[in-house]
Formats: sequence, structure tokens, C-alpha cells
Amino acid sequence: MISVQQAITQIRAAISSLPDVTIPIEAAPGRVLAEPISAGQDLPSLDNSGMDGIAVVAADTSSASPEQPVILPLVGSIPAGTNPEKPLKPGQAIQIMTGAPVPPGADAVIPVEQTNLDYSQPVTDQEVHIFAAAKPGDNIREKGGYYSKGDMLIPVGQVIRPQDVGLFATVGKAQVKVIRQPRVGLLSTGDELTPPGQPLEPGKIWDSNAYMLAALLEKSGAQVHRTGIIPDEREKIIEALDALAALPVDLLLTSGGVSMGAYDLVRQVMESEGTLDLWKVNMRPGKPLSFGTYRRIPFIGLPGNPVSAFVGYQIFVQEALRKMQGLPPAEVESIQATLTTPVSSDGRESYIPGKLTKQDGNWVVHPNQNPSSGNLYALIPGNSLIIVPVGVKFLNTNERVNVRLLD
Amino acid sequence: MISVQQAITQIRAAISSLPDVTIPIEAAPGRVLAEPISAGQDLPSLDNSGMDGIAVVAADTSSASPEQPVILPLVGSIPAGTNPEKPLKPGQAIQIMTGAPVPPGADAVIPVEQTNLDYSQPVTDQEVHIFAAAKPGDNIREKGGYYSKGDMLIPVGQVIRPQDVGLFATVGKAQVKVIRQPRVGLLSTGDELTPPGQPLEPGKIWDSNAYMLAALLEKSGAQVHRTGIIPDEREKIIEALDALAALPVDLLLTSGGVSMGAYDLVRQVMESEGTLDLWKVNMRPGKPLSFGTYRRIPFIGLPGNPVSAFVGYQIFVQEALRKMQGLPPAEVESIQATLTTPVSSDGRESYIPGKLTKQDGNWVVHPNQNPSSGNLYALIPGNSLIIVPVGVKFLNTNERVNVRLLD
Repeated sequence: MISVQQAITQIRAAISSLPDVTIPIEAAPGRVLAEPISAGQDLPSLDNSGMDGIAVVAADTSSASPEQPVILPLVGSIPAGTNPEKPLKPGQAIQIMTGAPVPPGADAVIPVEQTNLDYSQPVTDQEVHIFAAAKPGDNIREKGGYYSKGDMLIPVGQVIRPQDVGLFATVGKAQVKVIRQPRVGLLSTGDELTPPGQPLEPGKIWDSNAYMLAALLEKSGAQVHRTGIIPDEREKIIEALDALAALPVDLLLTSGGVSMGAYDLVRQVMESEGTLDLWKVNMRPGKPLSFGTYRRIPFIGLPGNPVSAFVGYQIFVQEALRKMQGLPPAEVESIQATLTTPVSSDGRESYIPGKLTKQDGNWVVHPNQNPSSGNLYALIPGNSLIIVPVGVKFLNTNERVNVRLLD
Repeated sequence: MISVQQAITQIRAAISSLPDVTIPIEAAPGRVLAEPISAGQDLPSLDNSGMDGIAVVAADTSSASPEQPVILPLVGSIPAGTNPEKPLKPGQAIQIMTGAPVPPGADAVIPVEQTNLDYSQPVTDQEVHIFAAAKPGDNIREKGGYYSKGDMLIPVGQVIRPQDVGLFATVGKAQVKVIRQPRVGLLSTGDELTPPGQPLEPGKIWDSNAYMLAALLEKSGAQVHRTGIIPDEREKIIEALDALAALPVDLLLTSGGVSMGAYDLVRQVMESEGTLDLWKVNMRPGKPLSFGTYRRIPFIGLPGNPVSAFVGYQIFVQEALRKMQGLPPAEVESIQATLTTPVSSDGRESYIPGKLTKQDGNWVVHPNQNPSSGNLYALIPGNSLIIVPVGVKFLNTNERVNVRLLD
């Protein structure tokens, strides 16, 4: 048996990073940044106003108070988006809006609330009454106050969030270089499988793993190419794998068909047409895991039981996708929680479906009572996997466990 | 001033729920389930094998041991997906694969590892040596052991995850009823705005809020309809709003243009052509928030500063989208963390960008030192918002704060 960590390490070592592509920033969320983003100019690019108000020379307002306002002539108005080149002279005031550039000569902005003006109407006043003194710099956002030209803003390897897209736009980028989206070929095999929506003959089951895995892959940002349900015939399996390989895809994924059973044709095909290692991973569920290549494309064979396939996806397939995108191994934050009922294990690292909630400010986790790895429903009421470490066979009510929250 | 909670309550009260639509299960992740999912049949539908092995009558194996194996004739093989009708007789054994139905008469499965068979090759043996005794029920997944026909499996209102898609397929559903995707019209206005990718004139800025908000909306599962950048002209704004209203959309969203400033034409248009409430919310950033209707379509006007727009999106727009989809107010889990440096506030409920990390097993949060609401870059190095409660003006290093992790 190999450890979970050894399996992850071997998978990562065998998977290559994908090339860069340039895409519109709108399409970038969830993708991995492949170029550093630096500032092409200072921001703010000019001193600008932090308030709707009037720009003044601060010294002119030093005596202002509600009882003794300073009265200055209004010489105009500066909307946002203009570039005032005419200097403001001492003794003058000019209307200014939030974000508008402060004119040369002005060194403070008085908020409109500290004047007699009403900005809910077009201003026709010829002069302004100022009720409070300003100091130089008041309500001015200084040129370069956020960042300076040349500053590094977002490093390579960032998984792009909406706020990053906002920053790409802020620095004027309409396109951005990201790692190409991983393409995954997903194979469904098995004479027992029937597509959902079609009537079920006795002894058959509806194909669920391929739908679940496709949804997991898409959530992880991969592009999924599915085969239909391939019958348990060697030639049909080769044909389906060849069609995926020709696209090409970056990873081939299947569940079931790869254990030691006599009908496990995927295993036989991989052993004759590609390479295949059958691993016994020291985990539960998901112990039998296969990893190999088909026409040089990496192949992961998850167990056929749906809970095993789900857990194997979380632990191994996500790492393969991370490696393709140049990301380091995931740092999975586990939450310490109190068990509501006992759990038992067989000494392997165990992942038991559970429901994590907060009670009176403390995390508690309720394990699923029917955790057969064949029972996908075990994953439905909960939101997490309880992790029982290697070597531990029993944990009692009120013991503390590490829990991995499923997103 | 109204509280954050009052603003959320008023927004939710004014927003209607959307109708149902039926979509393929592949398209369902992230959508809200609008029909209860119950079991159409027992699962497993028949007693089936939990292992690759041989099906037997348990009583026949009671004396089996490695030294004194029980030897039984092999009468055939049951792959998964078949429906064995012929009963197994006492004194017989039959090859069986994981998931295959247990034939009538058999009451236990012996794992292949406890026999002399080799399932990595087609089996040609006429008999099997059994090295361990079985009890009735061993390695058999009982009919209905996961759930029974009629059991409620997933309630209405579930936000659909990959595992839910897997369960839809498990119960044979190819399509599912969900709440229609919210359609949001996103308006960009302002003479100071330039589309990213185009050269910038002095005093202008690249439009970033619309890109950030579109990415946030798509992440929340909404369909986004964007206008281009609309100049500060009343007729152009009305034209753009009318085009969005005609689609129709379920919500109109804008940032900026809706405060008390003289150039805030969106406000003027809403006041004359629709309805508009200007709220002062007791929060920072994001105090000025407007909410109204345009041709009966709800309208939210976020502040124009990018950090304010971002925070307002998290707090208010997400609630509007939740209400449309019939979801209750979000229960946002905040994490208690230790401040690495002091933060100050003005007594409003404050949301300060921060970086949350775990150090030696404890959560610590590092506030951003340049939290101007005009500075989108403040959101980039971090992953969270530090929440300073109403009435608190200063929190020192090492004090504990609530932190909202941004996903």
C-alpha cells in the first residue's frame, strides 16, 4: 500500500504543465494567471477629489466657521473625466466631483456639506460660502497614492477572482494571458449502465458517476469531453479512447472497470495499449486507484463506487488539474470539529461523509450513518468529509476530528 | 441612517421570486432546485455484491479455513448489469462481480482474495477453494439498504452541487426543475470611463466596475446583460435602461452616478422615470446605496468607488439574487481571527480588506494598510473582509475580530 501523499506526489510528477493562451478578461475568472500584472501608470494618475465639493487653496479658508463663513467666487465646475489645465488662483473656488482631477494651484477639497451649495440641483451660484477650514491635502487622493507605475500588482499563478478582473480593467488590460483550460476526456463504460431518462431493465443501474464527475470537472474549471456509455467490449473501449486522444485531451478519466475483476476491460485495454499502475492507496474509500497513460495522455482510473469516485476526485484528480495549471499542491484547510456520534475506521486514512454545523459558536460534525461507498446518497445531506487519520480505528462522541469542508 | 440589516430586509421585501424552468441535469450545478427529488425505487434495487468474489450459501462454508478449504463447484459467472433468475443451489458457487445482483438462493459473497481464483485473468476453473467461512449477509448490499422507494432525497431549495447531479442521475432523472437563472442588466455610465484596451486620455480612467460586477454576477449564477459605456446624457441613459428592460431583465444594477452629485444623471433619470430611494446605510464603505424600480424592474445603485461597489455587491446584491431564487438570507460564517495590526473605524459597521491565514493552527488576519474605497488594489493581496461592528472605533493588535472569507 502507498500513502495518499505518495499517490499525489506520483500523479503530480507524471503530469505536465499546459501552455499559455490569451483571452478576454471577461472569460478569465477561475483561470490561472500566466503573466505578472504590473501598473502601467500611477493610480490615481492625477491628484483627484475624494468628495463632491469645491477645490480651494487651503490657506484661503483658515478663518472659516459656520458663524463666519469664508466667501469665495465660484469660477466653474470640474466633472470627472476632464483634465483641468487652467490653474486655480488664490481667492477662487471651483466646483469638483468625486474622482475629478484637482486643478493646478488648488490644494484641498471642501465637502459640499460644509458649504451652502446644493449639488442635487445644477449649481447657478456665483459664489460659495465655506463653513469649515481645510488643511492642505484634505479630501485629495494623491497621484500614485494607490500604487506607482511599475509596481507588481498580481503575480503569476493567481487563480483569477472577480476583483482581479476588475484590476485588469483598472490597469487597462482587455486581454490577459492565462494557462489554457485543461481538457479532460471522461469515459463511461459498463454493460450495467443505462442513461438517465431511459427505462431501467432489472439488474441495470442509471449511469451517475459520469454526470457527477463531469460536474466536478467543470466546477474545477476543466473542459469536459464525454463519451456516451461504452459497452464492455475491448474494441469499443479502444475506439472511444482513441477518439478522446485525437481531440486531444490532457487527461483521461474513468471510474470503475479498472480493478482486478474479470470484466474490467478498461484495465486490460490500458495494460495492452498503454501503461497502467494499479495502486493500493492507504485510504478509505478509494483504495484501488489506477494511474497510467494512453497514447502518452495521462490516465486516472477512479473506483466505480460513487462515494469512492467522489473522494478520489477531491484528493487526486484536483491535484492533477492543479499541476497542469502550474499550481502547487492544494493547502486544504481542515476545520476542527466535535463528533456528535462515534465513527469507526479500519486504520486506513478514512474520509467519512458528514454534516458540519456551528452550534453555540463551536463546530460540530454529524457523520453519515450509512457510509457505504456504493451509496451516493451518503454525500447528499452533508457538506463535508470527516478525516480519520492513518492508524486510528475508533473515535468516540465528543472527540475532536479534522473535517474537510466541500465547497 | 439605516442599518445593514434593515437595508437587506427592504431589498428582499421588494424582490419577487422567479419562475421554474426544466433543464438538463448537466446544466444544473449552481442552480436552485425547484422540485423535491424522491426515490422512484429502492436502492440497491436488488440484493447485490459489495465485492468481486463468489456467491455461496453461507452454511456451506462454515468449516472453511486456509488449511482445510471448502471446495465447491463453480456453476457460472454473474457480471454487473445482468439479472440472474436461476437460483443457486446449496453446494454450488458462482462467480460474481461488484454491483452484480446476488442470485436467488445465495446469501453471502466470499471475496476473491479468500479463494484460490485469480480475477485478473478470465476464470476457467471448474471449482473454487474457499479459505474462510461466511455468515449470511456477508458482502451483500441489501435491496433498499441505501434508501427505499418514496424516500425524500433532496428538498426544494437545495443549491445544486456535483454530487446532487450524480443523485439526479442515480434516480434516473435526465432533466430537473430549477429556478430560472436571474437576468441582470448592468449599466456602465460616465464620461470619465474608457474601455480597457483603448488608450487613456488625461483625467479619464478605464472602466473597471462593470467588469468586476459582471464577474461577480456570473459567479453568483446570474446571466449578465451589459450596456457599453453610456455617456452622461439623460436620453442615452434612458435608451440603455429601456433596452435592458425590454429583454426583460430581473434586476438593473449600476455603480456610481447615483449619489447627490450634480452630474449624477442616473439618479435624475430614476427619479423622473422610475422610483428611487437614496439610503444612507450605517456601513463603511458603501454608505450611499440607492434602491428603486425602473419600469417595475428592481434597481440597485451601488456606490462608484470600486471597494464600495464590491462590498455592496457582497452584502446587498447577493441577497437580491438569493430572494429571486427563493433562498433565505445568507448565513455568512465569519471566522474569529487575531489582528496583526490595529484597525480604526468611524463607528459604522466597517468592512476592511484583509488577508486571513492560519499560523500555528490559529487564524490571524492582516488588514490592508491602504483601504481607500477608491483603491480596488486593496482587495487584491487579501482574501477576506474584516468586520468592525457598529459603535467600535478602534481595535488593537492581538484583538479578536470577525472575518468574512471571500470565496
